[in-house]
Amino acid sequence: MARNTHVPADTSAPPITAILARFVAGHRSRGWSDAVDREAHRTFYNWLGCAIGAARHEAAEAALDAVQMLQPAPQATVLGRNEKVDMASAALINGITSHTFDFDDTHLKTIIHPAGPVASAVLALGEQRGASGRIVLDALVLGIDVACRIGNTMYPDHYDRGWHITGSTGTLGAAAGCARLLGLDERKTAMALGIAASQPVGLREQFGTMTKPFHPGGAARAGLLSALLASRGFTASERALEAPRGFVQVVSDKRAWHEVTDELGERFEISFNTYKPFACGIVIHPSIDACVRLRGQGVTASQVERIELRVHPLVLELTGKKTPKDGLQGKFSVYHGCAVGLLYGRAGEEEFSDAVVNDPQVFALRDKVQATVDPAIDEASVAVTAVLTDGRRVEMRVDHAIGSMQNPLSDAQLQAKFYALVAPVLGQARADEITAACRALDSVEDIRSLTALCAG
Amino acid sequence: MARNTHVPADTSAPPITAILARFVAGHRSRGWSDAVDREAHRTFYNWLGCAIGAARHEAAEAALDAVQMLQPAPQATVLGRNEKVDMASAALINGITSHTFDFDDTHLKTIIHPAGPVASAVLALGEQRGASGRIVLDALVLGIDVACRIGNTMYPDHYDRGWHITGSTGTLGAAAGCARLLGLDERKTAMALGIAASQPVGLREQFGTMTKPFHPGGAARAGLLSALLASRGFTASERALEAPRGFVQVVSDKRAWHEVTDELGERFEISFNTYKPFACGIVIHPSIDACVRLRGQGVTASQVERIELRVHPLVLELTGKKTPKDGLQGKFSVYHGCAVGLLYGRAGEEEFSDAVVNDPQVFALRDKVQATVDPAIDEASVAVTAVLTDGRRVEMRVDHAIGSMQNPLSDAQLQAKFYALVAPVLGQARADEITAACRALDSVEDIRSLTALCAG
Repeated sequence: MARNTHVPADTSAPPITAILARFVAGHRSRGWSDAVDREAHRTFYNWLGCAIGAARHEAAEAALDAVQMLQPAPQATVLGRNEKVDMASAALINGITSHTFDFDDTHLKTIIHPAGPVASAVLALGEQRGASGRIVLDALVLGIDVACRIGNTMYPDHYDRGWHITGSTGTLGAAAGCARLLGLDERKTAMALGIAASQPVGLREQFGTMTKPFHPGGAARAGLLSALLASRGFTASERALEAPRGFVQVVSDKRAWHEVTDELGERFEISFNTYKPFACGIVIHPSIDACVRLRGQGVTASQVERIELRVHPLVLELTGKKTPKDGLQGKFSVYHGCAVGLLYGRAGEEEFSDAVVNDPQVFALRDKVQATVDPAIDEASVAVTAVLTDGRRVEMRVDHAIGSMQNPLSDAQLQAKFYALVAPVLGQARADEITAACRALDSVEDIRSLTALCAG
Repeated sequence: MARNTHVPADTSAPPITAILARFVAGHRSRGWSDAVDREAHRTFYNWLGCAIGAARHEAAEAALDAVQMLQPAPQATVLGRNEKVDMASAALINGITSHTFDFDDTHLKTIIHPAGPVASAVLALGEQRGASGRIVLDALVLGIDVACRIGNTMYPDHYDRGWHITGSTGTLGAAAGCARLLGLDERKTAMALGIAASQPVGLREQFGTMTKPFHPGGAARAGLLSALLASRGFTASERALEAPRGFVQVVSDKRAWHEVTDELGERFEISFNTYKPFACGIVIHPSIDACVRLRGQGVTASQVERIELRVHPLVLELTGKKTPKDGLQGKFSVYHGCAVGLLYGRAGEEEFSDAVVNDPQVFALRDKVQATVDPAIDEASVAVTAVLTDGRRVEMRVDHAIGSMQNPLSDAQLQAKFYALVAPVLGQARADEITAACRALDSVEDIRSLTALCAG
């Protein structure tokens, strides 16, 4: 990317992932000299002695105490399913699923998706401990504040360098939230942050694979474990975040420390969180929103001769796929987004299913969408003209798409989104119950009354 | 460090770790506006819907399948103890203990300690599966090859930048070893490497805390989990290691790709592994070795008027502590190292205990050691003169200390080191049995016959 301040990207690197995979999977057993095999025996023997020798060290005691907090296994709910697993695994899986549809939330200043790592960790831990809803909420607010403030400190350099900032700062947010939920004191909280600092999760190269949603899940898991370790006396550097060889300086050349301290405890980053109205990349949200609004004004697919979009250049660069073949490709097609927006008035996960992408009606309307680049149009905006078969032209300009800071989802819209996601999995009645419990989360005595509703 | 090619280190950063810890631990419950609390409710509710909505996605199925491989809990041995835990936790703890004494092994070209992450992962997984000794050895050799070759590709830039290279490359080595042990095919092995690439573990700022040995443990755990996920169909980028926003380019400006491919399958990096003879930083090994050799020539503490060292400047910079107060400080004192070397002929973990550091005899001899810097002396060398009370001067020059590539530990010396570590924990008889099993590791049918011996 243009903003990368480091040595230029090397786009001609040999395929070392594939080369090493072939080697590891295919090299024959003991396919080396006796000398190499002797060294393997010595390496193993030496390692074994070191591990046994330190078996009673205080670090071993603390670590074992912490991992034993993960047992017995069925501690926490896998949301929407009937399996229970240990709380660290629950944090992992709930972090994965919450980000799987690219439909979660966005702290726009850093494009961190903050709930994935933080809520996944604090809910799993809260369930294991029977925490109150209030305690879970406090942990959520504070954990998100830590993740996003560290993100503010490093963005955009850290992101440009290739880190998936949701996971790399999410470990810290999850650790902070879990430390809070455990009631750790200042010193142990600092240790939790320190242990977490050594475990950033997430590379942008993974976008388009399951490892992208793994990032918030892995961060939740690592942060939770960091807090458990700290609670049992495990130690880390007291300057793990800010030291020259600490987290921020190692992973970013931008180090705007004041972002951590400015108005700390007065301004909360969760105030700047936004919720995605559409299950796709944010650059096509204005276009979809415009088509949904056209539909609201009575424009129907059958009336449409063509739809003309004027968009920011990035829209076609990232989502210019004219003829998507499946649901995933549909998420990278502004044409598809406009078609479902006008036809259905929404663009949730269902509208990006294979079936909808290949629906003849959707296909036909998609074909009528034309997009031209206009550098005068802001990234958050779009100008749409519906040209109707009777010759009328209906204009729709969107300056701030639904779901932006300026035009947030209303509670009713957020609820509609929730139902579209939850009812197909748990049914309408359960969606009602969960919604009621979430509204009253502040006064829920034991969070397990909520997680029980979320089990499949 | 002088070699850091990035923006200069900022040594005046505010103590943000402590500031955030105080905030998270101390901020009052619901200490924010109603608007903030409303956003917390919305953030939680939105996150919950996303997670439930994707509960049956293939990513969720794969991840849940993988973490369920960790259950039921007591799958693998914590070495030297009677507890059994799930295999991922065993990998973590055995990785921690093997590095706790700073006494393990070193791939000198990269200063990676390769067995910690790789052996800890493959032994825990091998135990759960009842793998043969041969399979474990193959996984160890190949896993170490992957970690050290990636290390060669990036060293020294990656290390100078502040990464603890043992953990950051160790995740890949552990994933490779576990993929091999599971018998994954090329594609799934590439996925395991890809998932692991998103989880580097380790910052140098943590040196001196428990989080330093956490790094190989955390890497072992992350690598093992990556292989389990890949085995269940979880996906990652096929170019996770080499892409512009892949692992190597994100964490290093040095990208010597040929280090991965040169003589792959012909030259094995485990051949260049070395074993620490002394339980302390490698810069004082030549001095200790010289004093052990003086002792071998009959020089005794009671004869000594003084001991004069001529050392490389780094020795006093890193280990110049003249009057250590406890065992940990003793590891940073070349004076203490020389004293125990001459008195006991060794410098294992016991010689760095608080008791030995404060022993009057050790104290007295330590006081007689004098060190001067000589830039003409190599880092791996020392020139020592024992000036005796009768006026004699006994010279001892060490060009390559014991434990170096040029002067490796013999099998007998390695065994003596092993016994000094293991006998105090498991007894002499068990140390005999484990030693015999390790010698015959190649023909062990089920590795559980070995791990059973290693339980406390």
